Amino acid sequence: MSAASPILLTPGPLTTAAATREAMLRDWGSWDGEFNRMTSAVCADLLGIVHGEGEYVCVPMQGSGTFAVEAALGTLVPRDGCVLVPDNGAYCARIIRILERVGIPCVTLPLADDEPASAAAVEAAFVDEPRITHVAQVHLETSAGLLNPLDEIAAVCARHDKRLIVDAMSSFGAVPIDLRRSGIDALVSASGKCLEGAPGMGFVIVRRTLLAQCAGRSPSLALDLHDQWTYMEKTTQWRFTPPTHVVAALRCALDQFIAQGGQPARALRYARNCTALLDGMKALGFTSFLPPAVQSHIIVTFHAPRDPAWRFADVYAAVREAGYILYPGKLTRVETFRVGCIGAIDEEDMRRAVAAIGDVVEQLGIRGV
Amino acid sequence: MSAASPILLTPGPLTTAAATREAMLRDWGSWDGEFNRMTSAVCADLLGIVHGEGEYVCVPMQGSGTFAVEAALGTLVPRDGCVLVPDNGAYCARIIRILERVGIPCVTLPLADDEPASAAAVEAAFVDEPRITHVAQVHLETSAGLLNPLDEIAAVCARHDKRLIVDAMSSFGAVPIDLRRSGIDALVSASGKCLEGAPGMGFVIVRRTLLAQCAGRSPSLALDLHDQWTYMEKTTQWRFTPPTHVVAALRCALDQFIAQGGQPARALRYARNCTALLDGMKALGFTSFLPPAVQSHIIVTFHAPRDPAWRFADVYAAVREAGYILYPGKLTRVETFRVGCIGAIDEEDMRRAVAAIGDVVEQLGIRGV
Repeated sequence: MSAASPILLTPGPLTTAAATREAMLRDWGSWDGEFNRMTSAVCADLLGIVHGEGEYVCVPMQGSGTFAVEAALGTLVPRDGCVLVPDNGAYCARIIRILERVGIPCVTLPLADDEPASAAAVEAAFVDEPRITHVAQVHLETSAGLLNPLDEIAAVCARHDKRLIVDAMSSFGAVPIDLRRSGIDALVSASGKCLEGAPGMGFVIVRRTLLAQCAGRSPSLALDLHDQWTYMEKTTQWRFTPPTHVVAALRCALDQFIAQGGQPARALRYARNCTALLDGMKALGFTSFLPPAVQSHIIVTFHAPRDPAWRFADVYAAVREAGYILYPGKLTRVETFRVGCIGAIDEEDMRRAVAAIGDVVEQLGIRGV
Repeated sequence: MSAASPILLTPGPLTTAAATREAMLRDWGSWDGEFNRMTSAVCADLLGIVHGEGEYVCVPMQGSGTFAVEAALGTLVPRDGCVLVPDNGAYCARIIRILERVGIPCVTLPLADDEPASAAAVEAAFVDEPRITHVAQVHLETSAGLLNPLDEIAAVCARHDKRLIVDAMSSFGAVPIDLRRSGIDALVSASGKCLEGAPGMGFVIVRRTLLAQCAGRSPSLALDLHDQWTYMEKTTQWRFTPPTHVVAALRCALDQFIAQGGQPARALRYARNCTALLDGMKALGFTSFLPPAVQSHIIVTFHAPRDPAWRFADVYAAVREAGYILYPGKLTRVETFRVGCIGAIDEEDMRRAVAAIGDVVEQLGIRGV
């Protein structure tokens, strides 16, 4: 892989398969039956990945994943609701910003960057603040790479009859999620993450009976999930121009996802990538930020070496020259950088990436790694 | 062109050039300098097309064109403003729906489907309703293919000191627009229209001094144009994941746009396509809906023949089989269908498309055309 077209070790956009990109070599009419059958098949497959057939519907949404998160919150939560947000990173903070903008009251459960949310803390919040009607839970906080215990939180939500909206942006397809008999009401993700499609569309998988109650509630027309759903049910078409090439790429990426063995196979490949990364970086002397118990196999945060010769911009440029794109840290308290384990890459790619990082450390004379 | 990959005679998504689609064969990191320089070059070229350098800024927005229209309205109009909407079609009606959702008062100027807005009617509305602070004008109403007289309306807005937001979705790049000394405050369009990129991003070209006053006003985080702008100014990056492949396709489409001679050349090609279409369809006996004076060269609405043998679904399927995708009508009073003149096609393609329509009319035994 040349520097002109480097491998992306980032949490999305990420490296896609050649076949996925080649699926964008054709134009599609947005009114055409063939395109609309493709959208419908994409939605059916997305539902299947999390066992949502029957009780849930999948509504695609133009834009980045954040657009789909805002669509879900703005459409599903009544203005007199109150949302609990367990906060252990930048994507939780983004949900809080959305709620403030949309005008939905929220209660924050502040956590450290390396501290997972817990069912006990969520339950305690329910007791403290009976106004809480909904929980917005980030499944996998990409800021540090932390996996929150979704099943336990879903169970406590179900027990207390609270609606649960999950931001599964960086987990969908790679971490097991089973909607059957779960306490999950809505699940949000996007095309350009662990499904390895091109970025440009999100989707919300939501309990049909819940969405059916939300007509006219969204304060936005573009992000009205109910309107998008009912229009598509009636016409098979998207309400507004769909990102046709991105939909075609996702269709192709899903074909590969299924052919490769679905979620378990995807999880296994990423876990191997992650192990190769952690082992290799440890051998170079790098320390990862999270304790193993909460480290996901999606993205790893490493401490930056203390040597002043470590300047992330220089390291980034030199590793990029070798054909790999690193990702900056997103923590405020400590200096870190991140390496994604996801995308159409395998452990051999990851070993080569680690070797490239090792070469750069040596070239730049960085010590104390 | 085979039926498997037909030519799109639609107002977007449309047929793109092979080079444009091939630009999507590479993955880009959204944090990477090379990608961000590409975004910046795209925005500079978009500004240049309408002579907006200096006084205006170009802010890209993820999603379809409607997302950018909502972003412009929700960010630029204060909640105590009042927007005049001259209404001669479905896209005007969509602006009214957006304003209602976002909670901005609006005044409608109802017009027939074939009746252009006029400076006199707009001026009369200003006198009748002094609460009006803004005008939202659709430049080219794709519902019928009608071109509204933008320059005159902009002049009257400037004279009365009203802010003018233009939906230039289907005109940008193909119809001359000159922001210098114009009364236009904001101009909205998208990647997948006359610029012949892939669909998936919109953009708003807006007077810098106006946008600078709009911090925190948008009722949506995802569609906050001010936040998108200031973040990009500060970091060179998009706030949320950009549709990287769509941006790369637009970059390539803009290279071709410039190399082919810019807006005048694009207008000339589309005008030739439109003439070939109108002449050919007239020879077949079809009548176009609009009078020539207001007929744009972007899309043409034709009356459906009265013969009961004309069933649009059958005609659509048969013409599609021959390699061309038609577009349904969008008028409520009369039965029509539409043929787009835009996309990477020339008059020879259009003549072949008309011949295919003629063959289908004969095959299906449709009379009274």
